[in-house]
Amino acid sequence: MTEFGFIEHIRKLFAEFPARGFEGIGDDCAILPIGGGEALVFTSDLLTEGVHFLRRATTARELGGKSLAVNLSDVAAMGARPVATLLSVALPRDAAEGWALEFMEGYRALSARYGTPLVGGDTTRSESGITINVTAIGRCPLTHLKRRRDALPGDRVFVAGELGASGTGLQEILAGTPDTPLAAVHRNPEPQVDEGVWLGTRPEVHAMMDLSDGLASDLGHILDLSHVGAEIELERIPVAAGSDLRTAACGGEDYKLLFTAASECAERLAAEFQAQFGHPLYPIGRITSGEGLTWLRNGHPEALDWHGFSHY
Amino acid sequence: MTEFGFIEHIRKLFAEFPARGFEGIGDDCAILPIGGGEALVFTSDLLTEGVHFLRRATTARELGGKSLAVNLSDVAAMGARPVATLLSVALPRDAAEGWALEFMEGYRALSARYGTPLVGGDTTRSESGITINVTAIGRCPLTHLKRRRDALPGDRVFVAGELGASGTGLQEILAGTPDTPLAAVHRNPEPQVDEGVWLGTRPEVHAMMDLSDGLASDLGHILDLSHVGAEIELERIPVAAGSDLRTAACGGEDYKLLFTAASECAERLAAEFQAQFGHPLYPIGRITSGEGLTWLRNGHPEALDWHGFSHY
Repeated sequence: MTEFGFIEHIRKLFAEFPARGFEGIGDDCAILPIGGGEALVFTSDLLTEGVHFLRRATTARELGGKSLAVNLSDVAAMGARPVATLLSVALPRDAAEGWALEFMEGYRALSARYGTPLVGGDTTRSESGITINVTAIGRCPLTHLKRRRDALPGDRVFVAGELGASGTGLQEILAGTPDTPLAAVHRNPEPQVDEGVWLGTRPEVHAMMDLSDGLASDLGHILDLSHVGAEIELERIPVAAGSDLRTAACGGEDYKLLFTAASECAERLAAEFQAQFGHPLYPIGRITSGEGLTWLRNGHPEALDWHGFSHY
Repeated sequence: MTEFGFIEHIRKLFAEFPARGFEGIGDDCAILPIGGGEALVFTSDLLTEGVHFLRRATTARELGGKSLAVNLSDVAAMGARPVATLLSVALPRDAAEGWALEFMEGYRALSARYGTPLVGGDTTRSESGITINVTAIGRCPLTHLKRRRDALPGDRVFVAGELGASGTGLQEILAGTPDTPLAAVHRNPEPQVDEGVWLGTRPEVHAMMDLSDGLASDLGHILDLSHVGAEIELERIPVAAGSDLRTAACGGEDYKLLFTAASECAERLAAEFQAQFGHPLYPIGRITSGEGLTWLRNGHPEALDWHGFSHY
């Protein structure tokens, strides 16, 4: 059973449950409208040693930041502002004391940057391996929420930053050279929090998510849930310096925003985004009324057996 | 550094953060008022193999129920009704497929009993050992919220069920006899959800929490946060059949509600609780204007070096 198979199984198990006002599984976050035209959003991510990180290849401080960053990114991908987190950590004896304090320093520093208080959680001993779970809570006007299911044929597809740096960094870590600039990018992802909140305010932005498993895989979720297809121009994928096209399209953990927007508004949106944030949006293709993801090279479809990313 | 030392360190790290409307660390749950006179509450609990459970001594189905139960208990201890959960599970290869499906059956069955949808979470591989994190969300009128800090001198101290069954069951599991009735109680805790919600509606109930680490330890949190003391009459502690007084006072994981209530309302409260739920409240002592916990035997203080419970 794959992870997606298990999630699909879980979704069916709970399909008949009362919703209690929640929009559940399927987006980056669960959504709860709370009255006054506002909603809260919720997400949890679990990081386990040896699967999501190697202790010898990251500092505790970096890992503290990354544990939070991946959750803030999920909140921002809904168009919401993160407002608080809960942190659970299981620590083996050889990661107590100094390691734990350093981890918390990294967690605190990124929390300070986005003003998110730590409001709860759990700490416990582990018999083997570090495990970290973060639950992030976000908040925004209902009308700002962006879902994966809302892409429309004709929409322009954008990514909000260059891709592949994290994937190449991971390759370098696994090759035994963890001291490269891109390996540092992999260990220190920057969630696009302000960008996500800003894009949330724009009604011309339709579907949005963050890139955690790679464009080739993640865009598929938008297409499936929106019942649309997409044509992506390989030449337009913004490849980070030092990376390569395939890693940019298939590597994971870039944590850049991927979204679709009404094409007639696309140029003004991109110009205003550039003015606001000092870095560009990258238009990489368009949504079609077809099915699935088509790669285009020089305007012609190219069959590529490209898939998303698996962890260590 | 102890667990409490680490939590205290974390509390200080975040002391200067913006609250964003949250009441944070210190109670069973974090609290967020959401307007309309209502609040949401949030709690997370992490269970790790070898520390919180032994795979050979529990079925996957039981563990699925217990993972949820301990969180529902925290929500109920605030006087709130659980409305949804997020579940993160890390599974090693030898707990995939059948184990995972059985675990979800147990989680679903208890979710169905309390009508709590599963709205999000994460599933991932683990290199070693099963880890489970549940985040539970509850909801209630602001005026129903019960905190640990609100005990008043003169209050009667109550527990809402018999104690010690889980602790004795754990002793039996560790002694190699996991097939006893009390061992089954340890593996299948029953959160007092309806009782907590009902007690939340009663203004004469002041401080409340759930008993997870044992009366001797948990009551100390209420006393510390309320700046009061307590006298507990040993004869009045309700010892579950097959358990003993010391285990009832010090054993963990009973998940019964512990609370204080205005003494002039105590008898009527107990009578109405009995009528509502068909089982009694147990008055076990009273809150004083002093400090710390005093055990009384036949009305006389008795020095006992009794402490709370540690996991496996």
